[in-house]
Amino acid sequence: MIDPPTLEALSEPILPTLYVVDYAGVAVFAATGALAAAREKHDLVTLAFFAAITGVGGGTLRDLLIDAPVFWVHDWKYIGVCLAAALGVWFLGRQDWRFRALLWLDAIGLAAYGVMGAAKAEALGFAPLICIVMGALTACFGGVVRDLLAGQPSILLRREITVSAAILAAVVYTALKGLGLSNVEAALIAAPCGFILRAGSLRWGWRLPSFPGAPSRN
Amino acid sequence: MIDPPTLEALSEPILPTLYVVDYAGVAVFAATGALAAAREKHDLVTLAFFAAITGVGGGTLRDLLIDAPVFWVHDWKYIGVCLAAALGVWFLGRQDWRFRALLWLDAIGLAAYGVMGAAKAEALGFAPLICIVMGALTACFGGVVRDLLAGQPSILLRREITVSAAILAAVVYTALKGLGLSNVEAALIAAPCGFILRAGSLRWGWRLPSFPGAPSRN
Amino acid sequence: MIDPPTLEALSEPILPTLYVVDYAGVAVFAATGALAAAREKHDLVTLAFFAAITGVGGGTLRDLLIDAPVFWVHDWKYIGVCLAAALGVWFLGRQDWRFRALLWLDAIGLAAYGVMGAAKAEALGFAPLICIVMGALTACFGGVVRDLLAGQPSILLRREITVSAAILAAVVYTALKGLGLSNVEAALIAAPCGFILRAGSLRWGWRLPSFPGAPSRN
Repeated sequence: MIDPPTLEALSEPILPTLYVVDYAGVAVFAATGALAAAREKHDLVTLAFFAAITGVGGGTLRDLLIDAPVFWVHDWKYIGVCLAAALGVWFLGRQDWRFRALLWLDAIGLAAYGVMGAAKAEALGFAPLICIVMGALTACFGGVVRDLLAGQPSILLRREITVSAAILAAVVYTALKGLGLSNVEAALIAAPCGFILRAGSLRWGWRLPSFPGAPSRN
Repeated sequence: MIDPPTLEALSEPILPTLYVVDYAGVAVFAATGALAAAREKHDLVTLAFFAAITGVGGGTLRDLLIDAPVFWVHDWKYIGVCLAAALGVWFLGRQDWRFRALLWLDAIGLAAYGVMGAAKAEALGFAPLICIVMGALTACFGGVVRDLLAGQPSILLRREITVSAAILAAVVYTALKGLGLSNVEAALIAAPCGFILRAGSLRWGWRLPSFPGAPSRN
Repeated sequence: MIDPPTLEALSEPILPTLYVVDYAGVAVFAATGALAAAREKHDLVTLAFFAAITGVGGGTLRDLLIDAPVFWVHDWKYIGVCLAAALGVWFLGRQDWRFRALLWLDAIGLAAYGVMGAAKAEALGFAPLICIVMGALTACFGGVVRDLLAGQPSILLRREITVSAAILAAVVYTALKGLGLSNVEAALIAAPCGFILRAGSLRWGWRLPSFPGAPSRN
């Protein structure tokens, strides 16, 4: 489905100037995974496993779906970053303020990944709706699998704005690209939009209206 | 693994006359996903997320396994159908009879997807046993992921006939194709077989015998 | 990403002399899946479903990630082995000693799969760290999905050495290959290392130190 030259181009990140952001995003998500395991007092191998799943899970699903080479399989440094995040949590992760700091870093990751997922799909020529879905999946799937494996309620089921923030970032990015802006310009506008939405949910408890019907369990 | 002309052919549905059925099947499964989220009174984004996972999850796994392009990634209308189903549930899904109606629509979807999953694998030349597995996965995987993410007991663990109905539809389709019938003929016989089995389970509580040993937990 | 000749070579197992071991490994893991369903007194179809997921799940994820054809899709005998394992458990699986015997067979499978996952990635030229990850995933992912679908605590969350044994086998295999040993030599040294680690955990309760911080739930 994908031409060799396009694949070649994909071995570079879509947004070269955001190379560092990419590793940083993996590190942040990996740290949230390792912290989830650390809270339950697991061993270092389990911390590393959760770090890797959370750090690269979303991008893995995106790459499988759009039939691109899975990014971390061809660049071992992503797994290296996850292992470093797990080690960092093991040695530093005991103070409570770090948990709170991570919630905010996670909000940054959510917005950045929403943009990056959409950007990779957009660069490959997929339809705008598909780019938005890829942004949302890239940002959220790692956390969904982390919660599933840890036996905790999924971020999907929490009454907070998380997926929506990633979707907003992806929608804005895709719309601005459609209006002719460059990758970097679109990303620099889109990511803050997603971050502000998530930050508002964290800080002021913003939430979407829930399904209004009477509960009907049968 | 797959020749370009075969891939070309796959960009059309295997059963052209069943085009509408394909979107209808996605819509039905998507609605069951949205309803699962609506029962727990989630917001519209969560409804849409569950609708999409349930609607296209099974076909996604099938396409990844047989190394075909993931169907909805190359035709955004499938995701559009899922969003429409989520909106439909949001505005109309409060009456109890709709939940019951959906159980029957779901039975139709189960039989139709069992056939379609097997048909796509059969058209690509896979072995009969693999076609049957693909039919079962296509029909059931979306619901399995929906239940997993919603924290509800999986359809695999309910003492009802669900997977078996999809398997029956896939077995009958694959056998009839082996006997030389056309795609449409085989589908028109196979899908009702699966539907009747599921309907019997819904209506008269048909079930398979369970493992006879004394429970042995260690 | 993969040249046709390499793909051709992959249609043979990496370690031809271990052909029988490969099917045996699938059978052992499939049996643990079927037993998990049998303990909950499910029907034969559910037993078969769990057998297949557990038996081929890990290798499926590995093949998707490294962009190789999914092994069982192109050789229906793997699914046949899973069905045979489910039937075996159905007719023979009631005695308690079989459950215990299986724990030891599972330990053998864990070590063998850790090696085989790493060997397939190593033969395709992936970086050592990626080979180790593939060994761990191949050995553990089937069991993780089995526990997830059965609603039981994941092997990741048990305070036993399981993942670590697979990682050790994969590390030793990858290191010995780097030192110039042949596939078979490396496998014959690496698999026992992994097995001994798991056996020590089963027999003497070996475990890794857990995260030392005070529990911090917020």
